[in-house]
Amino acid sequence: MHSPVRVEHDLLGEREVPADVYWGIHTLRALENYPITGKPIGSYPELVKALSLVKQAAARANHQLGQLDDTRHRAIEDACREIADGRLHGQFVVDVIQGGAGTSTNMNANEVIANLALEKLGWPRGHYKELHPINHVNMSQSTNDVYPTALKLAVVFAIQGLLNAMESLRQAYLAKAAEFKDILKIGRTQLQDAVPMTLGQEFSTYAVMMSEDIARLREAIALIQEVNLGATAIGTGINTDIRYARMATEFLSELSGVKLVPAENLIEATQDTGAFVQLSGVLKRIACKLSKVCNDLRLLSSGPQAGFNEINLPERAAGSSIMPGKVNPIIPEVVNQIAFEVIGNDVTITMASEGGQLQLNAFEPIIGHSLFKSIEHLEAGCRTLTENCIRGITANRDLLAERVRTSAGLATALNPVIGYENATWAAREALRSGRSVAELVLERGLADQETLERVLRPEVLTAPRA
Amino acid sequence: MHSPVRVEHDLLGEREVPADVYWGIHTLRALENYPITGKPIGSYPELVKALSLVKQAAARANHQLGQLDDTRHRAIEDACREIADGRLHGQFVVDVIQGGAGTSTNMNANEVIANLALEKLGWPRGHYKELHPINHVNMSQSTNDVYPTALKLAVVFAIQGLLNAMESLRQAYLAKAAEFKDILKIGRTQLQDAVPMTLGQEFSTYAVMMSEDIARLREAIALIQEVNLGATAIGTGINTDIRYARMATEFLSELSGVKLVPAENLIEATQDTGAFVQLSGVLKRIACKLSKVCNDLRLLSSGPQAGFNEINLPERAAGSSIMPGKVNPIIPEVVNQIAFEVIGNDVTITMASEGGQLQLNAFEPIIGHSLFKSIEHLEAGCRTLTENCIRGITANRDLLAERVRTSAGLATALNPVIGYENATWAAREALRSGRSVAELVLERGLADQETLERVLRPEVLTAPRA
Amino acid sequence: MHSPVRVEHDLLGEREVPADVYWGIHTLRALENYPITGKPIGSYPELVKALSLVKQAAARANHQLGQLDDTRHRAIEDACREIADGRLHGQFVVDVIQGGAGTSTNMNANEVIANLALEKLGWPRGHYKELHPINHVNMSQSTNDVYPTALKLAVVFAIQGLLNAMESLRQAYLAKAAEFKDILKIGRTQLQDAVPMTLGQEFSTYAVMMSEDIARLREAIALIQEVNLGATAIGTGINTDIRYARMATEFLSELSGVKLVPAENLIEATQDTGAFVQLSGVLKRIACKLSKVCNDLRLLSSGPQAGFNEINLPERAAGSSIMPGKVNPIIPEVVNQIAFEVIGNDVTITMASEGGQLQLNAFEPIIGHSLFKSIEHLEAGCRTLTENCIRGITANRDLLAERVRTSAGLATALNPVIGYENATWAAREALRSGRSVAELVLERGLADQETLERVLRPEVLTAPRA
Amino acid sequence: MHSPVRVEHDLLGEREVPADVYWGIHTLRALENYPITGKPIGSYPELVKALSLVKQAAARANHQLGQLDDTRHRAIEDACREIADGRLHGQFVVDVIQGGAGTSTNMNANEVIANLALEKLGWPRGHYKELHPINHVNMSQSTNDVYPTALKLAVVFAIQGLLNAMESLRQAYLAKAAEFKDILKIGRTQLQDAVPMTLGQEFSTYAVMMSEDIARLREAIALIQEVNLGATAIGTGINTDIRYARMATEFLSELSGVKLVPAENLIEATQDTGAFVQLSGVLKRIACKLSKVCNDLRLLSSGPQAGFNEINLPERAAGSSIMPGKVNPIIPEVVNQIAFEVIGNDVTITMASEGGQLQLNAFEPIIGHSLFKSIEHLEAGCRTLTENCIRGITANRDLLAERVRTSAGLATALNPVIGYENATWAAREALRSGRSVAELVLERGLADQETLERVLRPEVLTAPRA
Repeated sequence: MHSPVRVEHDLLGEREVPADVYWGIHTLRALENYPITGKPIGSYPELVKALSLVKQAAARANHQLGQLDDTRHRAIEDACREIADGRLHGQFVVDVIQGGAGTSTNMNANEVIANLALEKLGWPRGHYKELHPINHVNMSQSTNDVYPTALKLAVVFAIQGLLNAMESLRQAYLAKAAEFKDILKIGRTQLQDAVPMTLGQEFSTYAVMMSEDIARLREAIALIQEVNLGATAIGTGINTDIRYARMATEFLSELSGVKLVPAENLIEATQDTGAFVQLSGVLKRIACKLSKVCNDLRLLSSGPQAGFNEINLPERAAGSSIMPGKVNPIIPEVVNQIAFEVIGNDVTITMASEGGQLQLNAFEPIIGHSLFKSIEHLEAGCRTLTENCIRGITANRDLLAERVRTSAGLATALNPVIGYENATWAAREALRSGRSVAELVLERGLADQETLERVLRPEVLTAPRA
Repeated sequence: MHSPVRVEHDLLGEREVPADVYWGIHTLRALENYPITGKPIGSYPELVKALSLVKQAAARANHQLGQLDDTRHRAIEDACREIADGRLHGQFVVDVIQGGAGTSTNMNANEVIANLALEKLGWPRGHYKELHPINHVNMSQSTNDVYPTALKLAVVFAIQGLLNAMESLRQAYLAKAAEFKDILKIGRTQLQDAVPMTLGQEFSTYAVMMSEDIARLREAIALIQEVNLGATAIGTGINTDIRYARMATEFLSELSGVKLVPAENLIEATQDTGAFVQLSGVLKRIACKLSKVCNDLRLLSSGPQAGFNEINLPERAAGSSIMPGKVNPIIPEVVNQIAFEVIGNDVTITMASEGGQLQLNAFEPIIGHSLFKSIEHLEAGCRTLTENCIRGITANRDLLAERVRTSAGLATALNPVIGYENATWAAREALRSGRSVAELVLERGLADQETLERVLRPEVLTAPRA
Repeated sequence: MHSPVRVEHDLLGEREVPADVYWGIHTLRALENYPITGKPIGSYPELVKALSLVKQAAARANHQLGQLDDTRHRAIEDACREIADGRLHGQFVVDVIQGGAGTSTNMNANEVIANLALEKLGWPRGHYKELHPINHVNMSQSTNDVYPTALKLAVVFAIQGLLNAMESLRQAYLAKAAEFKDILKIGRTQLQDAVPMTLGQEFSTYAVMMSEDIARLREAIALIQEVNLGATAIGTGINTDIRYARMATEFLSELSGVKLVPAENLIEATQDTGAFVQLSGVLKRIACKLSKVCNDLRLLSSGPQAGFNEINLPERAAGSSIMPGKVNPIIPEVVNQIAFEVIGNDVTITMASEGGQLQLNAFEPIIGHSLFKSIEHLEAGCRTLTENCIRGITANRDLLAERVRTSAGLATALNPVIGYENATWAAREALRSGRSVAELVLERGLADQETLERVLRPEVLTAPRA
Repeated sequence: MHSPVRVEHDLLGEREVPADVYWGIHTLRALENYPITGKPIGSYPELVKALSLVKQAAARANHQLGQLDDTRHRAIEDACREIADGRLHGQFVVDVIQGGAGTSTNMNANEVIANLALEKLGWPRGHYKELHPINHVNMSQSTNDVYPTALKLAVVFAIQGLLNAMESLRQAYLAKAAEFKDILKIGRTQLQDAVPMTLGQEFSTYAVMMSEDIARLREAIALIQEVNLGATAIGTGINTDIRYARMATEFLSELSGVKLVPAENLIEATQDTGAFVQLSGVLKRIACKLSKVCNDLRLLSSGPQAGFNEINLPERAAGSSIMPGKVNPIIPEVVNQIAFEVIGNDVTITMASEGGQLQLNAFEPIIGHSLFKSIEHLEAGCRTLTENCIRGITANRDLLAERVRTSAGLATALNPVIGYENATWAAREALRSGRSVAELVLERGLADQETLERVLRPEVLTAPRA
């Protein structure tokens, strides 16, 4: 009553593999060696797609160089295309955290592609004499060039989603900046009342941050698009045709729609993970700013009675089972936590990069896993922040106006009119008495109504002197 | 042709919930608010179990205090027991990364327990008039005491597995220490040849590290066992009976088999995450040492021709598709990567802890998620290291013996016999000529054969002078 | 017109050393090799003291074991004692960041002690025939046991200052807790108004945190007090008398007044840095909580008009050159920054620990440097926080009272009296209208004045039901 | 017998200041508030220079706008110029770790400049009626625009030194790459023997890494050159002339020789620290790679008998007081430690950036301090690595040649000639027997001498097939 199996063998001997799976003995060993997270590499569809495209490009180059015959070439390309389109992702079962510098991921791909290609040619699974995972699917390749290349391509794919989410968030900030452009409020430095600004200025600031982060992210992607395909084992390109590296990279660019560039020095490119560190640094920067904005949103909406109470975040859930009517800033909170995770991931990536030795960095799997988490969770964070928070923010206009009217901070604007000494008196007296600076200045005859109105106009308070 | 639904309501209005799920409207909102990782809290069985036990203990205390009637009490306890035993974990669907300080996790538990209890009482799901997720299941509770208490209990559960795995690893080290106790080798400092030791001493060192880490972990767990159950919203225990906190904590200890202690100051305990930071610090320490040992194993097995080649790790997979016969230290490599992840998680946890404000830390979900990852992956790492690596390590005895015989480092041991000057000459000459220190000393008549044999015996070389 | 010099030699050849310095050729080479920070090891007086005491203890053990003659023994002990008492710290010139696993620090100490001892014996500096830095001062020692032992002892010394500063801070919190014990205020969770507590409870919370951190720190010190003196090169104790390790450690305990324990496994103790990682983890925990409290203080004193404005921090400096009368929370701000530094140092220490290889961790100097910074700056931060901030905090009693009176959060306390439905109405209406919950409840006849007074008493609001 | 004093006053009252210092009451308060590290801001000469240039540019703009008279303008410019040239750096005494968002640093500069300018005009120190630290030196300025601008400029200055040091290191790598270009060796992946390469290729790899890091650093500097001068308190430019911001920035570019650009949105630029985070991320990347290279150097020079022993690092110091003749890789070790520090600093900077609130980041002082440390120590590390290590590296040519000759890894190159099956046999047999692959293949008649010589030529082994 056992499930049917097939027998495969490798360097270490023979093993039974379930008859119906597309993966083979190398994948089986990986399953036994790395029972770590339970999360399979197939849960990163961009990685599976990228692997398939790399294998397809390699097959095409091998064919063009006369190293791979027409039949096998066609079968491999067909298999790769189907997988890239979403088929058989469930067959990519190796754990996302794995040893071996990605060898198991590469072998999982080789085996699934080989068996799917065999199927297309009418052969049963495991009939590797006809089409072999290593000899044919992995021809002219080594894990050490295939895996980093696929990882980079996958990251480029994944980042498109993040960029879109960031752009949506930027638009949402801009919309609020426009909506709030005439609402005067008191700016704060070091959490202490400072001078006036508009709530629109506050939100446009967030939009500028996002613009800059988008620009940095695009720069970081450009570095990621330099690949080492054709480097084989250590970058010397041993056992490849001299035309292969450039040819395979060009095919990969065509197939993926991503402009990839062969690294100038393939030995360096094979061992170096600097582009990943750079990208993670940018993701960390994005996390920092997202977290900063979320901290601000939570502060500005704090209260409502015993807090800042300047803005209202949309109500997304009941906040408490014990306190009637309480609603919390849950969307910014989840984004803060994503930011903390991304910052932690950056440390992980940094250590993995620093730990590389000699001609290869064996720790690229954790780099890839950490990057995917950072990218995916940042995208999710931007989306929920945009849709479930920013778009629904409203302002407490009356309260903000009243605070500006009575703010001791207005004294700063009166410096040029009534002098620093009088301004200091007015500020202190306003704080002491609770009366407005304007009122006090008027009462003491330091300035007339017309002057005050001129100097305390919003457009004067919130910009340099024209 | 729509799936059947039921209607529930909360503070924000009415919503349709699939008729067949045990969770309700609060969970639904969480699903909409937190589409972050796709990983549900139900994937941490210890957390689900701990939540159920907390709810059970609370119900028992409420019943004993006369606040909860017999029928509802019995139904809630039955439901909690079943869930603790493993039922309905698939109904705990809220994302592991979430805002709201764990409110959604608490509500998910309240809803599933309520609906399971209703089922037991013969009522349909959502019939909360009879038994209410908040009024009854959450009675005398707030997320702010339930969630941290459950998290701590879950962590205690999870750590048992890690402790067991660490103990197995320690035993495996000890077995190798015994097996290799007579194999002399050259110790190294700063990667340079130093003085002799035994390979057994090297492995027993790893066992000592593990012993110490186990001791530290036990200490950290003790801190985790101090809980704030009964604190309710901010730690003042508002709306609870003065006997409730102690009573519920005692029931929870009984039910869980874990000796929990009520925190002395519940306000402090409600906002403080120091015990989590401490625990994460210990996990990071464990990660550091595991990684150090794995670095050593990879070094000691490097080569085989152009490396240290002192030991052989068991062959677990073919190492290369391009280099015939190559086998790599893949198990230590995966453990290194787990270590990097744990160290990154520690930064995440630190930031989440530092970011807590006033009477609550809203970021406990990411703390919990990061801790679970660290604990689970360390356990998995220890297990694969034990079973797939340490137990199968063999030593290259002849090579090690030959290296000791010809080592210039033996000159150190001759200091007391032939003087520092002569020892320096012998060391330098041995390095220059490739001949052994003993041979050179004998030839020059600096010591006789008998003396050399006495001084260069393994038990003399590897211990203080008796 | 050159300065006078003396000539010394080592393994690499001869070099001129300024005639008047106590350090010698090994220190000279370190100065050339490590021009990194410009900060000399002499700037850590605890380290210089600890090194001297270790050398003194070693000399005493060597003398007692008959390995060191009376004259040299006495001269070395005298020299060590004087240095421990504060003399010649300016002669410890090696950079705090250095390679060589601390060898240069050890050699700097050996040379200064030797030359001071020579001076006592009437010999000129450099006259090492009579008393040699290595043969006599370093007898039975290796950098690999001396340096970690001295580092640990130095850390124990340094931490006393931190513990004292933490205790002072705790007392300051307690004093404020007592002063503010009757001031009712609104507690907050997730920055949203929650339920009442007293300002005294808030400050007593900080005191509890400090108590716990003090306890954790004491535990971590206990681990640090396990040393590897007598381990020599790699822990096997090669070239030492079997009685030496215990004897030297006992003398060191006597001389230092610190109860030091010999590690059970000296090989493990020589390569392991776990106790430093543990200690750093605790320092990081302290940093987290200090930072959290400082964040709270800045929040609670925010405004004064457009912020929380609950407490006033003492004015310590003018806050702005452009805004008259502005004063900022500068003391908490500096403590926040120290916390960030300590958390960064923990990452540095973690990486240095993880990077250790085989029988020694070559990176202990950066571990020591980072620990000293963390300890010293935390001490300084606690002191300035205590003296320049906490002690002078005042409360805005009237504002706090008014906020409680009008708080919608009081509705929570009325749940048991008027039911959840009515409580919800009262909370919402209070927020909408700006009137107090009590007033509304009274007006609608939901409860009488007497009941309200009973339920809304401070001692009822801020504790469980008696 | 007291030292003479002068009396100054500020918002908080009067204080005595030593008569002979150029700093005043604001600096005095900072000394009392921040006794943290003992390291004064004057120890960062680039910062003092940058502050002076900012003040000079501001004075020039104020003069041109008719806001500052000729006499004061000239005196301020003269004072600033002298300080920028190196005078009075000892008067910049405020601690490098400070609260107040840099206000104390700004005030220290204002006071020193004012008193030096007063001196030039013939007035005594403290005679601020004639020329005032705030009214005149700080005219049109706020700490919130002056401090970040000066910090950025100072960082640009400091980075020139690092860039130069990196370029020297790159040249040293290139020189070794040329020197070693014909030395064949076995490359390694995952610390296991792989396929041949040249030692020159190995060193040229390091040069490429350095080139890329230099390029990244230049990009990061470009971001740093965007400043917020003229933003004043919160970025609205309150109380400045509308022409001031651009004018002052242009003057600052002229005076500094650094092309600075005014930020497009001054409100954003005043609160955002993204450019610092980005720069720190790049410094961390540089640290990662430096550390990786140093790890490699230590590995490649390990032994000499029981290690890799491929290269020899120059001997820079005796390595051990107990082991005769031992020399250690101390220069790479110190660079590793600097790398760990830089990576820790990056976490500090990240947290400080994330912690910024609303219109200002109060934590820029620790950001600046951490950046200066990272930049200075990396520069020092590159310099000592270049001069004391890389330039003196030699290769063990004979050993390397012998290892290639006998390497089982050569079998990879024979795949196309003798087939994978035979290649596998040859590799395994070579490892088993210790004989060379070529010898075995020849003996079994799998290939002839001529073929083997053609296929195993270095230029064939270390590059793709032409």
